[in-house]
Amino acid sequence: MKNLSERDQLHLWHPLTQHQTAAPRLGIVKAKGALIWDEAGNSYIDGIASWYTAMYGHCNEFITEAISEQMKTLDFVMFSGFTHEPAVNLSEELIKILPNNQQKIFFNDNGSTAIEAGIKMALQYHYNLGDKRDTLIAFEDGFHGDTFGAMSASGLSSYNGPFEDFLLKVERIPVPQDDTIDDVLILLESILEQNKCAAFVFEPLVQGAAGMKFHSAKGLDMLIEKCNDNNVVTIADEVMTGFGKTGRNFASDYLENNPDIICLSKALTAGMFPLSITSCSQKIFDAFLSKDVLKGFFHAHTFSAHPLGCASALAGIELLNSSSILERRKYIADSHRKMVARFEKLPNIKEVRSLGVILAIDLAVETNRYGSFRDKLYDFYMSEGVNLRPLGNTIYFLPPYVITNEQLKKVYAVIEASLEIL
Amino acid sequence: MKNLSERDQLHLWHPLTQHQTAAPRLGIVKAKGALIWDEAGNSYIDGIASWYTAMYGHCNEFITEAISEQMKTLDFVMFSGFTHEPAVNLSEELIKILPNNQQKIFFNDNGSTAIEAGIKMALQYHYNLGDKRDTLIAFEDGFHGDTFGAMSASGLSSYNGPFEDFLLKVERIPVPQDDTIDDVLILLESILEQNKCAAFVFEPLVQGAAGMKFHSAKGLDMLIEKCNDNNVVTIADEVMTGFGKTGRNFASDYLENNPDIICLSKALTAGMFPLSITSCSQKIFDAFLSKDVLKGFFHAHTFSAHPLGCASALAGIELLNSSSILERRKYIADSHRKMVARFEKLPNIKEVRSLGVILAIDLAVETNRYGSFRDKLYDFYMSEGVNLRPLGNTIYFLPPYVITNEQLKKVYAVIEASLEIL
Repeated sequence: MKNLSERDQLHLWHPLTQHQTAAPRLGIVKAKGALIWDEAGNSYIDGIASWYTAMYGHCNEFITEAISEQMKTLDFVMFSGFTHEPAVNLSEELIKILPNNQQKIFFNDNGSTAIEAGIKMALQYHYNLGDKRDTLIAFEDGFHGDTFGAMSASGLSSYNGPFEDFLLKVERIPVPQDDTIDDVLILLESILEQNKCAAFVFEPLVQGAAGMKFHSAKGLDMLIEKCNDNNVVTIADEVMTGFGKTGRNFASDYLENNPDIICLSKALTAGMFPLSITSCSQKIFDAFLSKDVLKGFFHAHTFSAHPLGCASALAGIELLNSSSILERRKYIADSHRKMVARFEKLPNIKEVRSLGVILAIDLAVETNRYGSFRDKLYDFYMSEGVNLRPLGNTIYFLPPYVITNEQLKKVYAVIEASLEIL
Repeated sequence: MKNLSERDQLHLWHPLTQHQTAAPRLGIVKAKGALIWDEAGNSYIDGIASWYTAMYGHCNEFITEAISEQMKTLDFVMFSGFTHEPAVNLSEELIKILPNNQQKIFFNDNGSTAIEAGIKMALQYHYNLGDKRDTLIAFEDGFHGDTFGAMSASGLSSYNGPFEDFLLKVERIPVPQDDTIDDVLILLESILEQNKCAAFVFEPLVQGAAGMKFHSAKGLDMLIEKCNDNNVVTIADEVMTGFGKTGRNFASDYLENNPDIICLSKALTAGMFPLSITSCSQKIFDAFLSKDVLKGFFHAHTFSAHPLGCASALAGIELLNSSSILERRKYIADSHRKMVARFEKLPNIKEVRSLGVILAIDLAVETNRYGSFRDKLYDFYMSEGVNLRPLGNTIYFLPPYVITNEQLKKVYAVIEASLEIL
């Protein structure tokens, strides 16, 4: 009888996979806490929390129980004309922890569609005010998703190559570092002068897919302020950074100037359910109020505000700021900081950095994003029982908050050992 | 204490809603079978199966049990590099029932993103073959979703108004009726000659959001054949029609020429989980195989092939062709056909039609899609305990397969009574 890995090859098309050259997919049969198990019985530490989602650990019973309970009474109902307790409750809980200018919660199903909704809100905001604006501003090497609107804002060419002729108009700026803020501001000013800019879309503080690259909070604050002066809608993509990963609930909590729109997904439901949020300020929402029906926001996904998704998000938020998770968030952040000092001294290292539970190591090695060097590292980690997915020459570690001290130590040791094989 | 409907108004932004003029959203607290209950204890027959999803009835225990079981072992794991039993099993079961040219299953999270993936596959198919093509062909009044790519294919102006300048290039053709096939074919030929056409995107046989409008299977077959002759990728959007609604498993089952790509969602998981599929033929998949990594399909959503979504889809497919559901599908279809004959004779009727469990009635009334006439009908149905959402002057009824004979009769009677208030 064929195993999962063999059966997989018959009818499945995987994302981000060149099926002619990629190794067969490993069959995963079980997950619990920070661990996943393959069909041969081997376990792996999920060192990136399954794409930054499963922060409270796999099969967390507090969350699965919330879904089970919700399934008993109200599984799903359309969200036009109707509302329900899980959505209302979630909106109330989110507003409590989001930056204090955020007032309205709009639902989508994943990160890409949260960004699509954010971009559409920004374009229609200006349109409804009688001011047609056609240009987005975005960071170089940003990543915001794979639908056409989200792709437009993204600046990673490996994703966009075949579609470059089909994207929205975007002007790009480099991320600001403390010593380059003035240059970036001057560039932004010239873009604002020469274009009708509708929105500025950015991953605040940390660019995830670019390789966990950090930038200056002070610099981002000055860019947002400049956008505010020009009534350019600011859209913070917190799909990766949201729900505690940077040390605060949201990366935007490090800013003085609140973004107009914030996009959330991934850890929102602890990975248990595809749900995303596009939240916004009263100013944005008010521009859609009119006696004219069509000035409303005619964007809808069938599964909007799915009760099961809202139930898992409510459970997740309860965990996020529970004392046990807060203790783990702090422990991991402290531990990462100590490792930065240690790793910095090792050979073949270009830069080591951490923020909250994110630890990233740039190697002093030239390589392609999807080259064989990256695959060699990936294979080494898996052979040592750790799931880490290097991005080009960047190794990053973003563990579930529930990772044990022992597991944490093991991942650090495996990363250190991997530097030997360079 | 405030009720749900009042609390809703504080922080929630609903899809397809002009919040200045819309009535407050009704708080729904429970759903079971074909019924939903509001917070005052009133019940309503869910006459459109919550946007065509909950076909096996709300809180169906066969499906909720499948989700509960799956949550015990493997809640979620990323789908790059890894695979799992629910995804493999679902791919095998889908290939058994899909048109026989379909060979590969790619996962997304909702209808819009299934269409985005289909359009991107088509564009990159040509790109990978060294043939840059930039034009989509789509039906007038089609609806394919609300992300930028999906919006481009859609032709309903109430949705696209503020975004018209930001869409992909699309040439539109009217849907073919038996007596207009030749005209539509001539128009298609001229579009094919004058443009570099990449793909033809269509809702096969039934245009849902346009008002459950039907067209000729024979005509669609001839359009697909013409596209095949020109190597234009054909994309069937079966998000609404899929899983038995038209009387066969898929509307494409009425065609001689199989589409290259088929998009599925909604009833795929019985509404229990946001999951969608973009399936395709071997020809499409093979164009992405290469030693060049970047000729692969670099499109990914975090929640791809979510194990809980796959588990609910597997349970749904098992129900779809179970003897009890097959009996209901046939009963409802026969019953609808009888009602077509009855409704046709009533006053103020322009056209009545049915296909499978879809029944649609066009009224001989001029009205706007979102006008007060539509709201009046909606309010009447709700006051009678039936949830139907007329589209302009079209009343349609698309019940869950598990609707009882008594509930079915009640909806017919309420529709008939509504014609009196015109």
